[in-house]
Amino acid sequence: MSHEERQARVTELRRRLARAEHEFLLVSGLPNIRYLTGFTGSSGFLLVAPDSLVLYTDGRYTIQARAQTHNVEVRISTGTVLTAVVEDLKRRRVRNLAFEQNRISFDNYQYLRRELRGRRFQALSGLIENLRMIKSSGEIGLIRASVDLNSAALDQVCRKARPSWSEARLASEIEHEMRKLGAQGAAFETIAASGERSALPHAQPTAQKLHRNALIVVDHGAILDGYASDMTRMICFGRVDQRQRELFEAVREAQLAAIDSVKAGVRAGTVDRSARKVLKKFKLEKAFSHSTGHGLGLEIHEAPRIGPKEDLRLRSGMVITIEPGAYVEGVGGVRIEDVVAVTDNGCEVLTKTTRDLRVL
Amino acid sequence: MSHEERQARVTELRRRLARAEHEFLLVSGLPNIRYLTGFTGSSGFLLVAPDSLVLYTDGRYTIQARAQTHNVEVRISTGTVLTAVVEDLKRRRVRNLAFEQNRISFDNYQYLRRELRGRRFQALSGLIENLRMIKSSGEIGLIRASVDLNSAALDQVCRKARPSWSEARLASEIEHEMRKLGAQGAAFETIAASGERSALPHAQPTAQKLHRNALIVVDHGAILDGYASDMTRMICFGRVDQRQRELFEAVREAQLAAIDSVKAGVRAGTVDRSARKVLKKFKLEKAFSHSTGHGLGLEIHEAPRIGPKEDLRLRSGMVITIEPGAYVEGVGGVRIEDVVAVTDNGCEVLTKTTRDLRVL
Repeated sequence: MSHEERQARVTELRRRLARAEHEFLLVSGLPNIRYLTGFTGSSGFLLVAPDSLVLYTDGRYTIQARAQTHNVEVRISTGTVLTAVVEDLKRRRVRNLAFEQNRISFDNYQYLRRELRGRRFQALSGLIENLRMIKSSGEIGLIRASVDLNSAALDQVCRKARPSWSEARLASEIEHEMRKLGAQGAAFETIAASGERSALPHAQPTAQKLHRNALIVVDHGAILDGYASDMTRMICFGRVDQRQRELFEAVREAQLAAIDSVKAGVRAGTVDRSARKVLKKFKLEKAFSHSTGHGLGLEIHEAPRIGPKEDLRLRSGMVITIEPGAYVEGVGGVRIEDVVAVTDNGCEVLTKTTRDLRVL
Repeated sequence: MSHEERQARVTELRRRLARAEHEFLLVSGLPNIRYLTGFTGSSGFLLVAPDSLVLYTDGRYTIQARAQTHNVEVRISTGTVLTAVVEDLKRRRVRNLAFEQNRISFDNYQYLRRELRGRRFQALSGLIENLRMIKSSGEIGLIRASVDLNSAALDQVCRKARPSWSEARLASEIEHEMRKLGAQGAAFETIAASGERSALPHAQPTAQKLHRNALIVVDHGAILDGYASDMTRMICFGRVDQRQRELFEAVREAQLAAIDSVKAGVRAGTVDRSARKVLKKFKLEKAFSHSTGHGLGLEIHEAPRIGPKEDLRLRSGMVITIEPGAYVEGVGGVRIEDVVAVTDNGCEVLTKTTRDLRVL
């Protein structure tokens, strides 16, 4: 990501702050700090002042903070980072302070209120997240690379996977392969669930063997250059029975219908209901217990949510997952998930891997 | 962990709540919920009522929440989990609600205040964390197993590591090995930093090769049965020069001095200063830029902090890391870290791996 692109984000943010008559914004969400400055440390606050950006962090990040940022004043605290923030805000005689109410702990908020008595606090929600929702072509390129990497890792692991592996082994091999291919790590804890456990949408991998003739759900993603990917595929050693096959086909049809409905201007709820409508046809509407998808980028879960009641209209540049599923106790669960980038005419499916049930 | 042990924790918590005249406590910290109930899901709130425990979570965890808990009423929300909490609190006519101020977001706090107008909110800090600070012998056993596992993983990887590996490859191999040995995952992002990068205490592994004749710091830990481990060792292919060797010996002496000072009744600050005193002798006091250690357990960083100004007296059953370091730009960095359990007579060093510079 270029310094110019980050500078443009800050400029747009300042424009929105000015429009709402905010002067100073204290950014506490680390992914938001990264978005605006490039800083990747695990501790920090960012002050967006009308004419400067000030990054407060601790001594572990002295060298890194200066190396990663551009046109950012870096202040290293000796005590807690928030102490340094408070001292600096007093010195600057800040009277009105906007803050990210969805990104600050109650504790830190109380501390700021106590130490900055008499100032006006303005709670903001989702301001930077709304900027982040629309990805630049550079960002879409980074997400595409992350998606390609996670797909390649699954391909590699499928070549050597065995029914005698545990779910945990399968998950670990995928994460290791992603790292070998250059990922900073997994975007979330990889899900690998076999047989009846595939009916648990958020199964943690266990020591249970994968087994032959069982539905296996694999849900994983990478972090590459800071950007997340997310994909779910169904695999099987041997064969699945008729009911499982029907479950699979129903979910695939639902997933394709949802993808077909994606287009700038369409409401998120419409996309979700496109998937639900297909599953209803198969009497599986109650077996689909989560939303159809979510945005992703610097975080694995970002705005927008693709759920049944979401009014938000999709816009070109949004990048979202499409991942309907159906979970039937005693039979198993199926989920198929791709990442797509919304365009004016529809969408680009970034995930190139086949959606077919992969028989090993 | 047995249901009886968890029941005893709840009983002790209720005793402390009653002593402070609190009636209902809303627990929002997930590790605290796990400590009291065994529930490991990623979303939930727990109400500690005088005569019952109520766990609120979402539909992804319906089966899991019931399977993992005992004598806990499980409520599955259809909307956001906090909505279910609010409805239930209204139904129960709760007038006074204690909450964990260090474990709740500003957003969620505001929502509770708005929806439960007229009730009295009591901000508590560290109540359950203080219980968790003293580990039972069962918990120490779990931490020991986690420590043994991370040690075994490093041994395995050292057998096949090559100077041509990147830092990222080394980190990934260690994490993969921990998973193969049964870990749920890494307790934190493994640090592997070679040469000059070893002088960055929180270096993220890069594509840089490990190289021969360079100091390599490896800091990693596992999660096994929910419990964290944490260890730092120095490795090298070939040899290190005289200055690096001296740096290593100074840190080792500091680490041993700190371990020697650990004993129930001793202040945390005294332990920290034992390490600092040795480093001062080598004129390295300014090269030691962080605290000497921290507690660990269900989380990788728990109370107590072992820093220079900490007044807290150690107690038998506390489990802490001892990890002084010295970081010199242009020369490199050294950190050596063990996990120790505090006893009445001193401490038990849970980490059995040699502290020597490991030459491969």
